Amino acid sequence: MTALPGIGALPYGVFSTADDPHRRTGVALGDQIIDLPAAVRRLDPSLAAAVAGPTLDALLAAGPATWSALRASLITWVTDEAHRELLPLVPAADAVMHLPFTVADYVDFYASEQHATNLGRILRPGQEPLTPNWKHLPIGYHGRAGTVVVSGTDIVRPSGQRPGGVFGATQRLDIEAELGFVVGTPSTLGQPVPLTAFDQHVFGVCLVNDWSARDIQAFEYVPLGPFLGKSFATSVSPWIVPLAALDHARVAPPVREVPLAPYLDDEKAEPWGLDVRLEVRLNGHVVSSPLFAGMYWTGAQMLAHLTVNGASLRTGDLFASGTISGGSPGSLIELSWNGREPLRLPDGSTRSFLEDGDEVVISATAPGPDGTPILLGEVRGRVTPAAL
Amino acid sequence: MTALPGIGALPYGVFSTADDPHRRTGVALGDQIIDLPAAVRRLDPSLAAAVAGPTLDALLAAGPATWSALRASLITWVTDEAHRELLPLVPAADAVMHLPFTVADYVDFYASEQHATNLGRILRPGQEPLTPNWKHLPIGYHGRAGTVVVSGTDIVRPSGQRPGGVFGATQRLDIEAELGFVVGTPSTLGQPVPLTAFDQHVFGVCLVNDWSARDIQAFEYVPLGPFLGKSFATSVSPWIVPLAALDHARVAPPVREVPLAPYLDDEKAEPWGLDVRLEVRLNGHVVSSPLFAGMYWTGAQMLAHLTVNGASLRTGDLFASGTISGGSPGSLIELSWNGREPLRLPDGSTRSFLEDGDEVVISATAPGPDGTPILLGEVRGRVTPAAL
Repeated sequence: MTALPGIGALPYGVFSTADDPHRRTGVALGDQIIDLPAAVRRLDPSLAAAVAGPTLDALLAAGPATWSALRASLITWVTDEAHRELLPLVPAADAVMHLPFTVADYVDFYASEQHATNLGRILRPGQEPLTPNWKHLPIGYHGRAGTVVVSGTDIVRPSGQRPGGVFGATQRLDIEAELGFVVGTPSTLGQPVPLTAFDQHVFGVCLVNDWSARDIQAFEYVPLGPFLGKSFATSVSPWIVPLAALDHARVAPPVREVPLAPYLDDEKAEPWGLDVRLEVRLNGHVVSSPLFAGMYWTGAQMLAHLTVNGASLRTGDLFASGTISGGSPGSLIELSWNGREPLRLPDGSTRSFLEDGDEVVISATAPGPDGTPILLGEVRGRVTPAAL
Repeated sequence: MTALPGIGALPYGVFSTADDPHRRTGVALGDQIIDLPAAVRRLDPSLAAAVAGPTLDALLAAGPATWSALRASLITWVTDEAHRELLPLVPAADAVMHLPFTVADYVDFYASEQHATNLGRILRPGQEPLTPNWKHLPIGYHGRAGTVVVSGTDIVRPSGQRPGGVFGATQRLDIEAELGFVVGTPSTLGQPVPLTAFDQHVFGVCLVNDWSARDIQAFEYVPLGPFLGKSFATSVSPWIVPLAALDHARVAPPVREVPLAPYLDDEKAEPWGLDVRLEVRLNGHVVSSPLFAGMYWTGAQMLAHLTVNGASLRTGDLFASGTISGGSPGSLIELSWNGREPLRLPDGSTRSFLEDGDEVVISATAPGPDGTPILLGEVRGRVTPAAL
């Protein structure tokens, strides 16, 4: 059974059914999905254009006034009995979920101090674990937008060159549990987006598993960064939780030890720390429970940094937090300390990295409006054998 | 006067005119442009779908059989007097050129041994200039697809953090003269594209200026590679020269000193070295004449590497060679040896890096079928002052 985000989230996705195989937008409601174009046709035709099409692209592009109007309508429709009876619902169990939006550019950050520190200790022992830039700016890089896939897509074990130039299937296939931010409103080339405009541009969040081939990455990444060690696949959850649903999850970010450049200084801005609690399951067993709340850099800072050089945003840009390792680590390289301390699973088997057939599920919750947590859904993927 | 590619190239672009402002596909023919949808309507309606739309996207997606058929028709139309009289032509001087295709993913390689060696010497003096992986694989990284702009677009000087976390406008704005490869035919996730399938997937080439802010890049790039130092803008030439036009430019690549993994070993494959000769002009003065022929890695190897981990291609993927520095260097950081030996321009001024108002034009030629070189067009851009 796939965990569905609950009523507080009212997240958006794209689905089809055997009866009606065309892709359409929907909203998760418990174990049902509101057929959004059909609902809008019946209850508020003025929103028809924003929810039309086989992706959420039109809704993302419609901008914050439309996002608010649609969410307000949805809250009325699901809470008011007379409206609720009119909602066209599809059992979630009957639906196939699809990639919810066209990914424009994909950027991955490295915003968890715990993760960056762990990786520094593992990969560069005896040196200062954080690089000198780490507390001055949210380090990030561009990933491959064309290989972002929806939860449930099988992950073919990638091949490539391991250290020394040895070619073959990766022997160190890993996960990275992350939170992703989905951009709706574009920006103009040459004009930075300030911290305070975060919620004018970002539509919502999803869960991300940034699959990583550690041995391929290790050989290739100096001096230009990760490439084939990451580009084979990045999985995203099918449900995009709108920022408005996370109002009760907002918390202050940690105290920053290095004075920040004005464009990153959020001390006087509304805080965009988020109390999102993740759970990582490997073959059904919880192996980690990372906490997003302590992330050194917030989504608003990532966005301000991404654009401070004038780089423009497009509808569908996705930027992810990087591995979340506060509380407990969001990657196997950390959990097994690079293979030195393999995980023991309840079935008696051990894991340092993923084996063929392994399934990973990342799910998350956040505080909701009435004290009950809202669900952020889940992102799952199973490893299949290498093609080469 | 803008240099236009000649008859041998028959390159494709997208243009509009004051009389008819809708964007449409065209073919450069001396100082004229063939209005491609109008020509096809008149001379071969079966090709209409492939040349329709405000970009080359449909033509790129149509695949190699259509590319060959269209080029064969064009050659007939421009060489046969009776056909030529029927061609709908627009003076190039009256046309505005646009971004010719929708950029899917943008990857930048680092394929020139001279460039990588120069950068190693400048940035890591006293160490081996090439990293241990360099001769085992073509190093590359993903750039920002959303900020690829057409030649002629002004380049706003980017701001960011320089070494030490000092915020401000870049003081080391540079160029990188590169050749870009434009993907037409997509591939399937999980299935590598072999060396031999290069011309089944790649439609053609363009010129690329990968503008770089060296000080921003220097502070940010360890450990995840270039990000804001590159993502503010990448300029491409408006004319895409089809691979078929480069038949006479194909040369053997240099001898490789390290044995290559089978997926990169092109010793028995058709060679994809290309005798493309570039020229870099700064404010009208030639400052460098890089040669593509000696590039250590070919476009076919870049494509095979890019996909060997199963990463899929989409129509509109752009991958560029990295700075071409054989013959003479394709960047100012090399030409001025990181500012130690400023260039002296004929007007008496000196340059280590770009100043506001500077204009850079990169053009190129290649051997054509009848001994006369074909023109690959040009990519130009002028620096405007920082916004922040």
